[in-house]
Amino acid sequence: MENSEFHEFFVDELKDIYWAEKHLAKALPKMKKAATSPELAAAFDKHTQETQIHITTLEDVFALLDEKPAAKKCDAMAGLLEEADGIISDTEKGTLIRDAGLILAAQKVEHYEIATYGTLKTFAENMGHTEVADLLAQTLENEKATDVALTEIAESFVNEQAASE
Amino acid sequence: MENSEFHEFFVDELKDIYWAEKHLAKALPKMKKAATSPELAAAFDKHTQETQIHITTLEDVFALLDEKPAAKKCDAMAGLLEEADGIISDTEKGTLIRDAGLILAAQKVEHYEIATYGTLKTFAENMGHTEVADLLAQTLENEKATDVALTEIAESFVNEQAASE
Repeated sequence: MENSEFHEFFVDELKDIYWAEKHLAKALPKMKKAATSPELAAAFDKHTQETQIHITTLEDVFALLDEKPAAKKCDAMAGLLEEADGIISDTEKGTLIRDAGLILAAQKVEHYEIATYGTLKTFAENMGHTEVADLLAQTLENEKATDVALTEIAESFVNEQAASE
Repeated sequence: MENSEFHEFFVDELKDIYWAEKHLAKALPKMKKAATSPELAAAFDKHTQETQIHITTLEDVFALLDEKPAAKKCDAMAGLLEEADGIISDTEKGTLIRDAGLILAAQKVEHYEIATYGTLKTFAENMGHTEVADLLAQTLENEKATDVALTEIAESFVNEQAASE
């Protein structure tokens, strides 16, 4: 396998997650608006800002690799965001069901990103792109922290639900 | 929020992952056939059998809830499997790039399932469906183990790549 071929594959995958982050940045404010729980709305708000940082970080990664930042449609993220849209259209504002659905949709998105950044970080390390690997690792840690925060909101939410029965 | 409404949401999400598992069971043998590394092919083979068990487990979960097992199209898994298909059509058999792409696609699928089973298990526990929660936890552990196994293959693969340069 030629090294340049692997480089191309790696850059292609970066374009995929760049598309994903850009579309997520547009979807999160809609999810925030749809949420009922103030904690969930705040989590979406916080993650919108973090997603902007992830986009800038990816632009830094492209620069380090001497590549232009370009977005390539990511079918998986498109499907995940369609699912989130479906939850909003199938549920009513003010119901805990909608919040539960939004949490589930958001956690699927986070895991998609955890899988992507995790594998790309491993590839970058092994290709000797230490600085790129460090940048990807930072974003990876933030995605993991977001997933944990969403789990905590889900738990508090189901506990409330149990208490109200 | 009515309890029955939450039940309906929960069952709907089970139908979504049931669709996802059934379609994954069909995709994995194609991914196995496309793989070059014998370890990766063996991992896909093993996970095909495990996915069959997950399908049966979900049927047990539907039975415990007095629901008929039904599949509902999961846009996210559809997107993830399209991505895997794209990797196969964009790469050539026998290249390590294809294997790297297949690992990445498979890890995204695993993380999708980890997110789904993780949240559904939390919901089941809090709804008092202990047996259902235990079944979902078993599948969750298997998906996590599969993700770890894929990371190990990715690491050995990039080490080989580094050694061959």
